[in-house]
Amino acid sequence: MRLAYLYSIVAKSQNPIKTPFPRHVSLAVSALPIMADSEESLRRTLAEKQAALDAQAEAVRALKARPASASAEIDAAVESLKAFKVEAAAAARRLQAAVSRNGDGSTAGSREAFRQAVVNTLERRLFYIPSFKIYRGVAGLYDYGPPGCAVKSNVLAFWRQHFVLEENMLEVDCPCVTPEIVLKASGHVDKFTDLMVKDEKTGTCYRADHLLKDYCKAKLEKDLTLSAEKAAELKHILAVLDDLSADETSIGPSGLSPGYMRPETAQGIFVNFKDLYYYNGNRLPFAAAQIGQAFRNEISPRQGLLRVREFTLAEIEHFVDPEDKTHPKFVDVSNLEFLMFPRKEQMAGESAKPMILGEAVTKGIVNNETLGYFIGRVYLFLACLGIDKEIECSYGWIECVGIADRSAYDLRAHSEKSGVALVAHEKFSESREVEKLVIVPSKKELGLAFKGNQKLVVEALEAMSEKEALKMRASLESKGEVDFHVCTLGKAVVITKNMVSISIEKKKEHQRVFTPSVIEPSFGIGRIIYCLFEHSFYIRPSKSEDEQLNVFRFPPLVAPIKCTVFPLIKTQKFDDVAKIIARSLTAAGISHIIDITGTSIGKRYARTDEIGVPFAITVDSTSSVTIRERDSKEQIRVSIDEVAKVVKEVTDGQSTWADILWRYPAHAASLADEE
Amino acid sequence: MRLAYLYSIVAKSQNPIKTPFPRHVSLAVSALPIMADSEESLRRTLAEKQAALDAQAEAVRALKARPASASAEIDAAVESLKAFKVEAAAAARRLQAAVSRNGDGSTAGSREAFRQAVVNTLERRLFYIPSFKIYRGVAGLYDYGPPGCAVKSNVLAFWRQHFVLEENMLEVDCPCVTPEIVLKASGHVDKFTDLMVKDEKTGTCYRADHLLKDYCKAKLEKDLTLSAEKAAELKHILAVLDDLSADETSIGPSGLSPGYMRPETAQGIFVNFKDLYYYNGNRLPFAAAQIGQAFRNEISPRQGLLRVREFTLAEIEHFVDPEDKTHPKFVDVSNLEFLMFPRKEQMAGESAKPMILGEAVTKGIVNNETLGYFIGRVYLFLACLGIDKEIECSYGWIECVGIADRSAYDLRAHSEKSGVALVAHEKFSESREVEKLVIVPSKKELGLAFKGNQKLVVEALEAMSEKEALKMRASLESKGEVDFHVCTLGKAVVITKNMVSISIEKKKEHQRVFTPSVIEPSFGIGRIIYCLFEHSFYIRPSKSEDEQLNVFRFPPLVAPIKCTVFPLIKTQKFDDVAKIIARSLTAAGISHIIDITGTSIGKRYARTDEIGVPFAITVDSTSSVTIRERDSKEQIRVSIDEVAKVVKEVTDGQSTWADILWRYPAHAASLADEE
Repeated sequence: MRLAYLYSIVAKSQNPIKTPFPRHVSLAVSALPIMADSEESLRRTLAEKQAALDAQAEAVRALKARPASASAEIDAAVESLKAFKVEAAAAARRLQAAVSRNGDGSTAGSREAFRQAVVNTLERRLFYIPSFKIYRGVAGLYDYGPPGCAVKSNVLAFWRQHFVLEENMLEVDCPCVTPEIVLKASGHVDKFTDLMVKDEKTGTCYRADHLLKDYCKAKLEKDLTLSAEKAAELKHILAVLDDLSADETSIGPSGLSPGYMRPETAQGIFVNFKDLYYYNGNRLPFAAAQIGQAFRNEISPRQGLLRVREFTLAEIEHFVDPEDKTHPKFVDVSNLEFLMFPRKEQMAGESAKPMILGEAVTKGIVNNETLGYFIGRVYLFLACLGIDKEIECSYGWIECVGIADRSAYDLRAHSEKSGVALVAHEKFSESREVEKLVIVPSKKELGLAFKGNQKLVVEALEAMSEKEALKMRASLESKGEVDFHVCTLGKAVVITKNMVSISIEKKKEHQRVFTPSVIEPSFGIGRIIYCLFEHSFYIRPSKSEDEQLNVFRFPPLVAPIKCTVFPLIKTQKFDDVAKIIARSLTAAGISHIIDITGTSIGKRYARTDEIGVPFAITVDSTSSVTIRERDSKEQIRVSIDEVAKVVKEVTDGQSTWADILWRYPAHAASLADEE
Repeated sequence: MRLAYLYSIVAKSQNPIKTPFPRHVSLAVSALPIMADSEESLRRTLAEKQAALDAQAEAVRALKARPASASAEIDAAVESLKAFKVEAAAAARRLQAAVSRNGDGSTAGSREAFRQAVVNTLERRLFYIPSFKIYRGVAGLYDYGPPGCAVKSNVLAFWRQHFVLEENMLEVDCPCVTPEIVLKASGHVDKFTDLMVKDEKTGTCYRADHLLKDYCKAKLEKDLTLSAEKAAELKHILAVLDDLSADETSIGPSGLSPGYMRPETAQGIFVNFKDLYYYNGNRLPFAAAQIGQAFRNEISPRQGLLRVREFTLAEIEHFVDPEDKTHPKFVDVSNLEFLMFPRKEQMAGESAKPMILGEAVTKGIVNNETLGYFIGRVYLFLACLGIDKEIECSYGWIECVGIADRSAYDLRAHSEKSGVALVAHEKFSESREVEKLVIVPSKKELGLAFKGNQKLVVEALEAMSEKEALKMRASLESKGEVDFHVCTLGKAVVITKNMVSISIEKKKEHQRVFTPSVIEPSFGIGRIIYCLFEHSFYIRPSKSEDEQLNVFRFPPLVAPIKCTVFPLIKTQKFDDVAKIIARSLTAAGISHIIDITGTSIGKRYARTDEIGVPFAITVDSTSSVTIRERDSKEQIRVSIDEVAKVVKEVTDGQSTWADILWRYPAHAASLADEE
């Protein structure tokens, strides 16, 4: 009796796929500040002061070394040295301040403090829990606790509405377990592995690009003696680092096991292209979508919730005719304006700049309308969630959504590996006459002439480009023979007229067969949610100054709990009303909490503000109640029968709070309400 | 430079967890038909006929062997043999027919044909796709194509509404990757591995219980010479098979890798118990819930979509005080009546019987109210999805939802392994006086007496049970010394009165500390969906008899597409109206398809009936349209402005089709409509 395992599953380290795809656009690329003139001149000033200081120190040493030196002369030189020191220190301080102002992790102190405040609140209120905490956790794995989980499912539900439903996408759901052949074809196994370096002393492994990034950043921030030229060089390295990584060297996985946990969900869509194209009535363009877990075995996960080993991806693969990437709905988003960071500015180390999307497409900065359309739709999606216009967070710029034109790369790779044609057809309304080059080598003649080499010569002849073939035909017609270099033989052979027939034939074609291009918006759901948390967090001034009131200003759409129900004072009749309201909220599908603890209303508000509940219903009578909006703290009075309907209206997005405010009488909060 | 893998992930074969938990209730246990009297008597008849036939054949052989036999005598005997053959064959046919009538894979022919019709439709319309099909697939892995994926997300959304929202559960979301220590503690790694047998000739592995099941079933169906007694025995084996499997022998996994893909989502909840209990205000009972992927490396996946290697589980862990498993809402479900299959009837090989839930709890067939409450809620959940009252499918009875009382098993195991107390507290309203045994070994005296063995003796003394300690105290008081066996030393030592003090002390306690019990409803989402597909499928009689019209009668709640929009004839003005309606449906969040192909309305209906679209809007004017209900084929006329609102009402479940039918004028379908 024996237990057999049919496959073993090995997760592998995997960079966001980027390098092999041209025209990659990311909504949050690693933006780097341009070096301000002041910083550059401050570096020069500091260098001058330091040089003067060094010279004076040398002079003092020389004076002291000479026995003849007068003590007064020495004293004066030392005084002067002190003055130089003060000046150099001041220049260093000015430079330090300038460096700290210039973003990207450099305003480190305040950013770090802000992040700590957010993360503390998130962990204390169980938005996140380090996975397997009682076993001291596993780096790079986090659980979503109840409010985090609710936010996540709200974000995914809205993603489905905004993309799948509104764009009629074909959503699929494929397994995480993926056979090796699929990831061989896609290139994941052989090509896209991260370069690793190992600390020979400690045995610890690091990603080469991370190590380089850390070194450059630390040098820039801490080494004030850095010359302006050297600083510019390091900044350039940081700017182009993402383009340097991977793909010069490829490293295979250590074990040759046939199963992997998928590093992205996209491949599941590509391998189904043929069925999905048929499902769509054999028409292009169409988009398929998938939400699911992906796994990347990060060597040393850092950046807390941003770089993890298992995460939820939501990916769209929009298949288009490579010859027509226009989009009928592009006009709907072409007037959007937001910060863009074109390749040119990136490579030059310049900064991002605001642009109008339509203009970016016209100028070719965004390659085509379809790519532009998705950039616009993604922007709107993030804005609806409550993310700032610029998706920077306390860690700097991080990639939350990558929008890539993957061209025909993946479909071609899977066609080749599987032998199944993953192609689209364009039927012509009337057949077209096309010219086709036809090369027919005479195997008999070639066999007589080249014996065992015949096969290689035949292959070389068939592989000729149109230009080469026409040149050969001309030579054969004029001279009767021609020298022909056969690479696989490593030498030239003489080809005579009877050995090959080269002609241009006219053919009627009824359709064009081609491999579609793929535009891929890929969403890192966990990263989006983390940015949402940072962008929604604020600290409300409290009347008692020692207290800190944390608030998440989640829009109702993503708020984990839509409303709370509080009896104002602890009596049976108010508790009963609260329960009736809770039942009506449940029936309307509105998530809520009842708090009948009898704590002060102010404390109960504070508790729920901290998990971002947008509306609080306070039961202060048996006929009507008040509804309070979290951020404005405004209150209205609504009858008990209507309250669920009103809350549903504002949480479903049918009405805004402003609309509601206009329709119901305002309620002036008593002093006791918010203490 | 080297690539390092921090962990490898090995999925393991895993039975549904069942054996170690008492009082396991499954909504779909392996029900077996009782052997019908007719079948039993038919087996006896066949045996008699066969015996008579054999005797006659022997007589013929004997006659032929005797040289003296008259040819007339031989002819008569042969004629008689023929008659016996006919009788035996007839008896065999009657038995075969009886066996085929008696369920559980035995009406094999028609069940198989029905399943093929369903599965063909599911695969043709891309509800499912064998994963990685272009690479010839991987056994036990399936993709959900667009309609299947939509059904799945509707089922999960309703699960969240029905359980998480309505019962105020704490939903969490934990990673699939799980460190070994967690699954060591839970017992998955050491205990719950399936018994495997290996075919020594081919090297193929089988699950022992499957092999046994197959053998018994095949024997019962095909071997008509089986005695009635033998048949009864095989049927009994089948009835108790689930109780035989696992746990007598435990087989460890082959590799000692520290990471696994989780076989269930439950452990993620257990390890978070402490935080979740705190989140719930340190109050019991409360339930946590999780939806996510689970992995079981089935050795040879069979039963198509039912036994797969990766699947979605939705699990609830309801934590209760083991001394109080009443449920305040049990009364809401206590009057439900459905088929139950108590342990007694299972073991006796009897069949399931209808019972009222309240009665089942009163009689102790269902152990407690909390367990009963969940059985009722699960029943209502399945019924709302459109699943038959009995969740049998063409494969027989399969486990779709397991509802187990896991007692305190998991929390205790994780407490022990992690050293973190996973307990609840019951604060007493006034403190209680309790008696406590206090054993205080004198380390000094024990050290003098036992030197290096002192520590082991101290530990052995402290580990005494109350009974042992009181016996020792009595002996010490009467005799002054006592022989005490120390297991860890492997011998007895002499303990004297000065070496240990044993007393009973009265203490005041302000609270009770205990490990909660866990009631676990666990849903195999893929299996539920597959049963839903079988239960929703029917074939509609067609006017042209050669055509087969397949229909899925999905309730609007789970239908992948809620409605279609068809212009009756191909004109610009109807197409424009169709597009306006489509936009209003999108805005209302209703999934839909526009079909402007101009195919006949009948064909368009047939196409969408086959993916279970409940409502079809036909545009036949520019002011109003018709809405047709899929199963009744009834039609009403609704104005264009109202159509989205009406469809939303019936798909959201606010109104039924009957309600709507009453409010809007009926539209008589023309003959051309459904041809």
